[in-house]
Amino acid sequence: MNTRFLDACRGLPVDRTPVWLMRQAGRYLPEYRRIRSACSFLELCKSPELAAEVTIQPVDILGVDAAILFSDILTPIEPMGLELDFVPGPVFENPVRTLADVEALRMPVMEQDVPYVLETIRILRCELAGRVPLIGFGGAPFTLACYMVEGKGSKDFATIKKMIYCAPEIYRALMETVAEMLVAYLGAQVEAGAQAIQIFDTWGGILSPSDYERYVRPYTARVISGLAGCGVPIIHFVKGAGTMLETVREAGGDVVGLDWHISLGKARETLGPGVPVQGNLDPTVLFGPKSLIEAEVQRILRENDGRPGHIFNLGHGILPETPPENAKFMVECVHRLSAKG
Amino acid sequence: MNTRFLDACRGLPVDRTPVWLMRQAGRYLPEYRRIRSACSFLELCKSPELAAEVTIQPVDILGVDAAILFSDILTPIEPMGLELDFVPGPVFENPVRTLADVEALRMPVMEQDVPYVLETIRILRCELAGRVPLIGFGGAPFTLACYMVEGKGSKDFATIKKMIYCAPEIYRALMETVAEMLVAYLGAQVEAGAQAIQIFDTWGGILSPSDYERYVRPYTARVISGLAGCGVPIIHFVKGAGTMLETVREAGGDVVGLDWHISLGKARETLGPGVPVQGNLDPTVLFGPKSLIEAEVQRILRENDGRPGHIFNLGHGILPETPPENAKFMVECVHRLSAKG
Repeated sequence: MNTRFLDACRGLPVDRTPVWLMRQAGRYLPEYRRIRSACSFLELCKSPELAAEVTIQPVDILGVDAAILFSDILTPIEPMGLELDFVPGPVFENPVRTLADVEALRMPVMEQDVPYVLETIRILRCELAGRVPLIGFGGAPFTLACYMVEGKGSKDFATIKKMIYCAPEIYRALMETVAEMLVAYLGAQVEAGAQAIQIFDTWGGILSPSDYERYVRPYTARVISGLAGCGVPIIHFVKGAGTMLETVREAGGDVVGLDWHISLGKARETLGPGVPVQGNLDPTVLFGPKSLIEAEVQRILRENDGRPGHIFNLGHGILPETPPENAKFMVECVHRLSAKG
Repeated sequence: MNTRFLDACRGLPVDRTPVWLMRQAGRYLPEYRRIRSACSFLELCKSPELAAEVTIQPVDILGVDAAILFSDILTPIEPMGLELDFVPGPVFENPVRTLADVEALRMPVMEQDVPYVLETIRILRCELAGRVPLIGFGGAPFTLACYMVEGKGSKDFATIKKMIYCAPEIYRALMETVAEMLVAYLGAQVEAGAQAIQIFDTWGGILSPSDYERYVRPYTARVISGLAGCGVPIIHFVKGAGTMLETVREAGGDVVGLDWHISLGKARETLGPGVPVQGNLDPTVLFGPKSLIEAEVQRILRENDGRPGHIFNLGHGILPETPPENAKFMVECVHRLSAKG
């Protein structure tokens, strides 16, 4: 088995820097679009055979060192009682605004409520047959709460911030509920066979560092410590957190994910050599010429300076219009340029 | 005259920390909405008497220590040949995509093409009569280029990034043209009476630090050095730049603007004690209770730790639904809590 990814998560030396791409199973691949053309996004998430198929596509096509479950961070929210739709961005018809709304949330029973997620993982472990490890994932409590409270994407997140500032007891109750759900949901993914977990905090960076520390980190820390017994590495990715990496780090976990807004070298200095990192190429670089892609891969590897514990990735999800051959070339560059003597 | 703001820009000691709010003339004020209800946003920008009136409103209502010209960063782009509309976000019908598009741009003659901006400034200097200083402003070359190339707001700015990576000669020609225009435009504002200039780089933070250094900073630096003879302080605000403040600083200018994603204390340590800073309260805090507003003002003042060269501000524009009494309370808190002995 290719263990580069898992070794790097643990800070162990590897023969080549492992690489995968956030959203690597997705619209930029014609093979994905072919399957997706016959069903909705949610239907695809709920069809284990098809979800497994699109999960494996980038492993075959790009040669990445890890597969990541095809699903959505909002999948476990629907069975809590919120109606989810994609238009194409996610929308909840009945957002959470009151304490009664929070109290009305159901705690999902994973094998009954999201059986398709666990079944997809089981199929994948069979079909991958040890070629590369399988990453499971979930949203961080704060990011899920943002969607649940705002009801949709937002520019300034005024609704959830008003809740934090003006109705902290509602916010706290919601975050406790979501954190509890996540421990069960991610634990079930590991039990089904996920070999690592990535926690996506897409919106953790919208708060000031002091608010992040007070209102976000304790709940993420609770999820991570709740998974401590699982024995799989945990990657914690907070978008827009380059100014507060030490604070993010204190939530726990094994690997700190980096977006492209901080230099990887600076991040490693801030975090110290013992903390593995993942990242951090600007996804739009994949629209550029091959010479640029190679130079940018080289720059990031140089910033890492040979330190163990680096997983190469984009700084955010791959964009839908990315030419697949450029993604493939990027993966080749990472492997070629990081190969030991 | 109240010189707190200008003194702080120069790093001099002040009796109380000066404060103003980005977008302080705006929709959150009923007095503004009353005037705005009779004309479009662009009409208001082009009506010197009215623009001056809304500029002065927050000075009277909130008690801020500086007025900032009511205008839009895109005002000088229209006479370059791009048709501007607000729907309500800015849209250019004919975005810049080719070298021919760049070559077709007209260099505006300020007294002919934006006479209303200069006239507004002249009226304001009369009407303010030295009560508080008047800040002029413009967009940074990169932020203006983003709008000119994308044609409207964007989530991932793929179009301008593709231009940077795939057609650098078009990008360079555009940035040189915009930088040249800005030196003339901001110089004309100072000549008309602006006593400080703020450069807004709303989108400078969308690039990696290394790309910012290569593709953005040289052009901002050109604008700032082109204004060197003007003798007024220059505030350089790059949103999302907390991870690369040293790099931003090297563009020149007198004051570094901070958004709320970095702690002010950390920013001051990074920049060194000799660099004045402006910021950095999360605008949504003004939706919270007064106790929170006071505590957050106190926190930021404490992070500044009495160092000279701090101008209090929000970390981004005040939001339209902000209760005016909360903005006023914030200004009072800054003055009260920073009062020397």
